[in-house]
Amino acid sequence: MSLPFTILLLLLFSTSSPYFISLAHSKIARLGISPKTLKNEPTQKVNESDLEMFYFNQNLDHFTYTAKSYTTFQQRYAIDSKHWAGSKANAPILAFLGEETSLDSDLSTIGFLRDNALRFKSLLVYIEHRYYGMTMPFGSANEALKNASTLGYLNAAQALADYAAILLHVKQNYSAKHSPIIVIGGSYGGMLAAWFRLKYPHIALGALASSAPLLYFEDTLPKHGYYYIVTKVFKETSERCYQTIRKSWKEIERVAAKPNGLLTLGKKFKTCAPLNGSFNIKDFLDSIYAEAVQYNRGPSYWVTNVCNGINANPSNRKIDLLDRIFAGVVALVGNRSCYDTNMFAQPTNNNLAWRWQSCTEIVMPVGYDKQDTMFPTAPFNMTSFIAGCESYYGVPPRPHWVTTYFGIQDVKLILRRFGSNIIFSNGLKDPYSVGGVLEDISGSVVAIKTENGSHCQDIVLKSKEDPEWLVMQREKEIDIIESWITSYKRDLRDLNISI
Amino acid sequence: MSLPFTILLLLLFSTSSPYFISLAHSKIARLGISPKTLKNEPTQKVNESDLEMFYFNQNLDHFTYTAKSYTTFQQRYAIDSKHWAGSKANAPILAFLGEETSLDSDLSTIGFLRDNALRFKSLLVYIEHRYYGMTMPFGSANEALKNASTLGYLNAAQALADYAAILLHVKQNYSAKHSPIIVIGGSYGGMLAAWFRLKYPHIALGALASSAPLLYFEDTLPKHGYYYIVTKVFKETSERCYQTIRKSWKEIERVAAKPNGLLTLGKKFKTCAPLNGSFNIKDFLDSIYAEAVQYNRGPSYWVTNVCNGINANPSNRKIDLLDRIFAGVVALVGNRSCYDTNMFAQPTNNNLAWRWQSCTEIVMPVGYDKQDTMFPTAPFNMTSFIAGCESYYGVPPRPHWVTTYFGIQDVKLILRRFGSNIIFSNGLKDPYSVGGVLEDISGSVVAIKTENGSHCQDIVLKSKEDPEWLVMQREKEIDIIESWITSYKRDLRDLNISI
Repeated sequence: MSLPFTILLLLLFSTSSPYFISLAHSKIARLGISPKTLKNEPTQKVNESDLEMFYFNQNLDHFTYTAKSYTTFQQRYAIDSKHWAGSKANAPILAFLGEETSLDSDLSTIGFLRDNALRFKSLLVYIEHRYYGMTMPFGSANEALKNASTLGYLNAAQALADYAAILLHVKQNYSAKHSPIIVIGGSYGGMLAAWFRLKYPHIALGALASSAPLLYFEDTLPKHGYYYIVTKVFKETSERCYQTIRKSWKEIERVAAKPNGLLTLGKKFKTCAPLNGSFNIKDFLDSIYAEAVQYNRGPSYWVTNVCNGINANPSNRKIDLLDRIFAGVVALVGNRSCYDTNMFAQPTNNNLAWRWQSCTEIVMPVGYDKQDTMFPTAPFNMTSFIAGCESYYGVPPRPHWVTTYFGIQDVKLILRRFGSNIIFSNGLKDPYSVGGVLEDISGSVVAIKTENGSHCQDIVLKSKEDPEWLVMQREKEIDIIESWITSYKRDLRDLNISI
Repeated sequence: MSLPFTILLLLLFSTSSPYFISLAHSKIARLGISPKTLKNEPTQKVNESDLEMFYFNQNLDHFTYTAKSYTTFQQRYAIDSKHWAGSKANAPILAFLGEETSLDSDLSTIGFLRDNALRFKSLLVYIEHRYYGMTMPFGSANEALKNASTLGYLNAAQALADYAAILLHVKQNYSAKHSPIIVIGGSYGGMLAAWFRLKYPHIALGALASSAPLLYFEDTLPKHGYYYIVTKVFKETSERCYQTIRKSWKEIERVAAKPNGLLTLGKKFKTCAPLNGSFNIKDFLDSIYAEAVQYNRGPSYWVTNVCNGINANPSNRKIDLLDRIFAGVVALVGNRSCYDTNMFAQPTNNNLAWRWQSCTEIVMPVGYDKQDTMFPTAPFNMTSFIAGCESYYGVPPRPHWVTTYFGIQDVKLILRRFGSNIIFSNGLKDPYSVGGVLEDISGSVVAIKTENGSHCQDIVLKSKEDPEWLVMQREKEIDIIESWITSYKRDLRDLNISI
């Protein structure tokens, strides 16, 4: 840990994945942006009075039996039993498997559970992922996020085992042995949900994996990359806007190369701090565009906002290219006295934890792969990525572990006659959809894709303004889940399993 | 590790599971017994010239990313490619997943692979389990088996991940990406084979799990216990023999309680060392009877041998009850100058490693459960078992982990619509069959049981003297495996997956 934080972050950031910043939840939405722009995240106040918070005494390491692995930590989870029809009815349990954020954040945005609690008469469970939010091993975030010796226990297999332990505990507490559990998750949490169904079929009857890019790994690289979709959405929104962005990168370089170029650039973008290089601006813009696309949904479409800013032609005078780009930033982020180019990569606890995961296990080779984007071509370089992570943490990534352990390669071949009850849902306007499962695998391992959907859109709280296709998509998901439960209850009867 | 070894062993041994001694392979067969008695293990010399031995650089810990988890060790495996039709034919790979013994021991007894190599035109792979045989982390058995800090990495989940890594490595080396792998294992190794298919369906197309007592855990206790079958087989072999054994325990106590009773008892059983208590003799006899039943097969049926000894009536004079019992021992173990009552529980490396596994994860509650055995009733006591293990190793067992992670409880309900391609084979004369899956679950998760089969009998080397039912059983298993492969190859074609 000798490198100053910012240098490392830039190193990783500029050579690799936007996944470092593009999580299941929009960062922009949490960065104190002008309310006028921020309309995409649900604004209705969630009634949390039905939620009870709990802490579970969780094992640090489920897969070894050294004295250290018996260390425990307090894992936070929440339960809402308002609509539950009870164990006697074998009423279902909807369980949200937390991803790389705090439980509070999930509780305020994830709607699929409470929106359907009454319909399913279900118990709702929300579990916070280890090392995020309040769920910190080793007593404190400072200690937990310190280095590989403490971070080493942060990975997907351990997280899934946590969920297994808590769900069995909840079932026991509610005497709900045969209540079917449906697990739900989005983005990385969507991978967890699908993987959970595959690894723990005796605990989860089925999974709704929303926007889970589980085919975006070294051994299962998608044909097009993340930035292909980012580009596509911009181009579809406005050809002119797309062209402006496409040209801007050279212009940034041109300005930066001049005497005092970085200073000029800094002034143009009203940066809060002097620039270390043109990459500060480029990374910042990259994040703006990526987030805008990832969460581009009504009522306020962020890409439209950005492009409106870029395309605007106030007082009819010819505007400088970079001023246009900056106007796009302002249109999304709002008027500010200055702009922090590092705003998407703050060393918050969640970001530090996720960087560890991205640098060890969830190694998604997201680059500007080919000449199919509006960004300068810069393919993901696994070698330098590995070297960067290893030099920072002292341990190398295991980029093949996900496909070794979870094995989503050849997904059609493998899951055709194995497994059941997984919905892979994707919005095709979500850049991560390129790594999603987009075709039905079998009768009960199915893909639901929406032409205009964005990242995890189906599982956020519903709203009166939702478009018809989104309402239909959710209805379809609910129908499928209901069919799993019906068939499960028939099995219970057939097998004479009493409650 | 302050307790002397023998005391601990006895403590555990007399309060708990015979599994400590009853492994997939007969111990008796390896203890230098008179050749006349020892006819059950295959005597033909195996041609090992087709076998190549390899070592794989294996990660110590697949589930954490601390510096220590990157420690590696050399894992031994063997390959026989003599009959392999090659990757272009997508010819199958038969992989034996080693259990709690050395690879050498498996290579000399396991026949299912080489007996069918030609028929399947398959590559054969045999992998040694971590911490057994030559596969020792930490540089030496002394170090690896020392205490919880080194033994902590010995468990089933880590072993399965080892197998996954090696099998992917072998596939890569042989350019055999789409060659289907069938995993095979017996006893604990049979559990591993079934679990491997469930957890790594992308690596193994199917599993033959021979004599796998995976329903013999805290949450899935069988109706009858291990010793119920031991008793049943003795009773069926000879009612008189059974009665003699049943009465003998009290007689042992009676003799032991007399002045110099242990001395008398020791003389009667010609023990090599003075007895510490009557339990020395009782545990010894228990092991004799259990092993005799577990490997009771032709041409020399061990239970028949023991009972012939017990029932014999030389020179027509009335023989003392315990002399009869001793004659049973001699009939099985042969004439010796003295008898080591501890012969089944020697502190060999394999036994030390298995004791760790039994004391942490593979906690099978085998006791003299009810009054349905020929042994004094003594139910398994989980509380004292846990206390014993914890005081010895400093870490408590996790008796619920197997059902949390592998989840074989409610097996019919869960696997009815999940998973595929597993054969659970059991011989009903094998005491472990009480914990086996004995009924078909679905079209491709099937149970094969044989009325007269003993422990793992179907996977040992075939012989001309094999009974017809055993030949048929193997034929059925092969047919099923062939059907999996046929269907898989059709899927490859359907999905247009090229080699």
